[in-house]
Amino acid sequence: MPVISAVHTHDVRFPTSLELDGSDAVNVDPDYSAAYVRLVADNGEEGHGFVFTAGRGNEIVVRAIESFGALLLGRDLDELVNDLGAASRLLVHDSQLRWLGPEKGVSHMAAGALVNTLWDIAARRAGKPLWRYLAELPPEELVAAIDFTHISDALSPQDALDILSAGQEGKAERIASLEEAGYPAYTTSPGWLGYSDEKLLRLSREAADQGFPLIKLKVGGDLGDDRRRLGLVRDLLGRDFPVAIDANQRWDVPEAVAWLRELAEFDPYWIEEATSTDDVLGHARIRREIAPMRVATGEAVPSRIVFKQLLQAEAIDVMQIDSTRVAGVNENLANLLLARKFGIPVCPHAGGVGLCELVQHFSFFDYAAVSGSQDGRFIEYVDHLHEHFAEPVIVRAGRYLAPRKPGIGAQMLPESIERWTFPDGAGWVQVGDRAAVAGRGTP
Amino acid sequence: MPVISAVHTHDVRFPTSLELDGSDAVNVDPDYSAAYVRLVADNGEEGHGFVFTAGRGNEIVVRAIESFGALLLGRDLDELVNDLGAASRLLVHDSQLRWLGPEKGVSHMAAGALVNTLWDIAARRAGKPLWRYLAELPPEELVAAIDFTHISDALSPQDALDILSAGQEGKAERIASLEEAGYPAYTTSPGWLGYSDEKLLRLSREAADQGFPLIKLKVGGDLGDDRRRLGLVRDLLGRDFPVAIDANQRWDVPEAVAWLRELAEFDPYWIEEATSTDDVLGHARIRREIAPMRVATGEAVPSRIVFKQLLQAEAIDVMQIDSTRVAGVNENLANLLLARKFGIPVCPHAGGVGLCELVQHFSFFDYAAVSGSQDGRFIEYVDHLHEHFAEPVIVRAGRYLAPRKPGIGAQMLPESIERWTFPDGAGWVQVGDRAAVAGRGTP
Repeated sequence: MPVISAVHTHDVRFPTSLELDGSDAVNVDPDYSAAYVRLVADNGEEGHGFVFTAGRGNEIVVRAIESFGALLLGRDLDELVNDLGAASRLLVHDSQLRWLGPEKGVSHMAAGALVNTLWDIAARRAGKPLWRYLAELPPEELVAAIDFTHISDALSPQDALDILSAGQEGKAERIASLEEAGYPAYTTSPGWLGYSDEKLLRLSREAADQGFPLIKLKVGGDLGDDRRRLGLVRDLLGRDFPVAIDANQRWDVPEAVAWLRELAEFDPYWIEEATSTDDVLGHARIRREIAPMRVATGEAVPSRIVFKQLLQAEAIDVMQIDSTRVAGVNENLANLLLARKFGIPVCPHAGGVGLCELVQHFSFFDYAAVSGSQDGRFIEYVDHLHEHFAEPVIVRAGRYLAPRKPGIGAQMLPESIERWTFPDGAGWVQVGDRAAVAGRGTP
Repeated sequence: MPVISAVHTHDVRFPTSLELDGSDAVNVDPDYSAAYVRLVADNGEEGHGFVFTAGRGNEIVVRAIESFGALLLGRDLDELVNDLGAASRLLVHDSQLRWLGPEKGVSHMAAGALVNTLWDIAARRAGKPLWRYLAELPPEELVAAIDFTHISDALSPQDALDILSAGQEGKAERIASLEEAGYPAYTTSPGWLGYSDEKLLRLSREAADQGFPLIKLKVGGDLGDDRRRLGLVRDLLGRDFPVAIDANQRWDVPEAVAWLRELAEFDPYWIEEATSTDDVLGHARIRREIAPMRVATGEAVPSRIVFKQLLQAEAIDVMQIDSTRVAGVNENLANLLLARKFGIPVCPHAGGVGLCELVQHFSFFDYAAVSGSQDGRFIEYVDHLHEHFAEPVIVRAGRYLAPRKPGIGAQMLPESIERWTFPDGAGWVQVGDRAAVAGRGTP
């Protein structure tokens, strides 16, 4: 039997803050980073995974992956891969490590990266990209992979089985259509707060010309700036072009309501992260008070348990799953099924580094075998750092093309890992002085 | 000016799992541990703090403290100590590190330990134990230390000022009474799931004889066991003796309701952690469906933002703050004031290692200057590991006696730190074989 023989970790960071890519009202200077893990078995099989972070602290997640990885060393790989539900529970519910969350923050993300390495191996063994591997698993096997702990009041195993069984009808046609025509994307590339009006307008024009059906602008820094920028984009693209806005948790609840009333005339397609990601009741109140504006959140929601409540409280119109915030593929299966149960579209969060490559699989799978719909559904797209991956995403005419390589899409190129390993990779040595000025350098 | 010159960390663990002390339905085998930090300035001043963990993963928190500690190195200690609100924001809202939470899990606990080292220095400089230092600060200074971000819809700075100003009346008498007579305790020592019926009854008898006004039993492993144990304790102590129960998040919402209906005849004083600590709506539903049984939670609540919602949703009758789960003294000030605003008693979580030593200060302060009441309020007490601290708590006749040494109470004895440093301390070398059997040893 193949045995897990090593858990290799890498602290990979990109100096994105030097260009203010990714700047918003809260994340003013991110260095897009990956706490990267390569799980190796003694027969040569490998699984890849990572956690996305904003720079400082990436080393903490690396340490956490090493600690959780110790739970896997020496174990039978076949046993883990053949029961990915049990494998997930082994990591997520470890009786001592659980205290560090439970199921949130650094520890949860680290467990998720390792869970994902096992799905990567499972999909590689099947010779399929993750989305297709999931879509072609029997509903019973998918249900067995899901942890229903603390969500069974909203989604039971039988509910999940019913949804997935219903999703079998027409699945082959939908898979064929995905491989032919892909899945809708939207782009945040024009709208970072650090960009000038000129750059905002140029990139917005480009996005519309390229066929993106929706763009997103960051807001929440200054009300006057937000109104000016939205007005400029409306003048450019017209009244009907969908433009979403994103406050990145900048506001308290009353402030969110007041601010959004000032932006309502620009008819935002949704308002994202209007307040704390942990404030279910706050999101529900904001949604009531600014109706009919759509409310979206999720990129920082730590678990299916909080998503469950956002749905139960009727706090959101759009659910934004993230691929490395929760405990891996298993938990995002639960999230997709919760959304389907409550009739809410999923528009995944992406960007950063590698998030597009990972998260696209969930939308493709959702269309193939869960919701069966693309209405009001888009995968976020940002044109950063794709060149570092073994299979970079391809977006054409505003649509993600279906990934084809076996696995979950997490594999980064070895030369990129080496060059951007922090702090000693050649890339960091090269930008060293400028980076020091930007205040980096957590040891 | 004194400058912060070092952040010393220690991975301290105690092999408590060998005796099943601390065993409950979820935490089946904790090794009570502290990710310990000693902040040192170049003038010789020192502040102490720590994060409590359950064993494995303590090393992750140690790493996180080192990373967050780098933000403090080289800074002016006076400036930090003279504006503890700004000091807290510096750590909690770091623009890159924030992604790791935000405000939850490993990163939040690590930030809290460092925030606490600064309060330790502030209280030492004033020559007072923390509770008295807080009680004697002007209300305006306390308000300035609080981060109202994402709670202002429930507690405004003016609300806080009003509560603290009202708390000035009779404060001197209450401080005198605390120094004279202490504050009520309750004990969980009898009720661990791993204990035999004989040990349960012997310790319950002792607790009642010692004057504890309330004891707590762990439940949620097996319904028959719970009914038998509660029946035995009721037979022993009578119908009217307050006996709380604690399920440590073992149940889903419907299961909690059904299980608790089977325990209602034993008239539990409260049910603690009936479901996921993150499930505000679940707690609210359970409370409605098992009324009038009191619902308690909080030891694993990550932030003031979740406490706010538990109060807004009328989900709890008892709020259980923890001293090392949230971001230090500042955030617990917010928690105490939220509880006061909503008229809910605070009964702090303690036990583990050092949690009694730290958390008692918040109840003493609450009585002196916030709620002014001890009705329905008790500090948890477990008789573990106090001997390792510079000022062990003293409980007499069921009451905590007022701590008197300057500081926050976090200081552990150097010889204890050395002996129980994991994995190379002499204590660990000694229990090595037995510990290996118990499955410890995350590298």
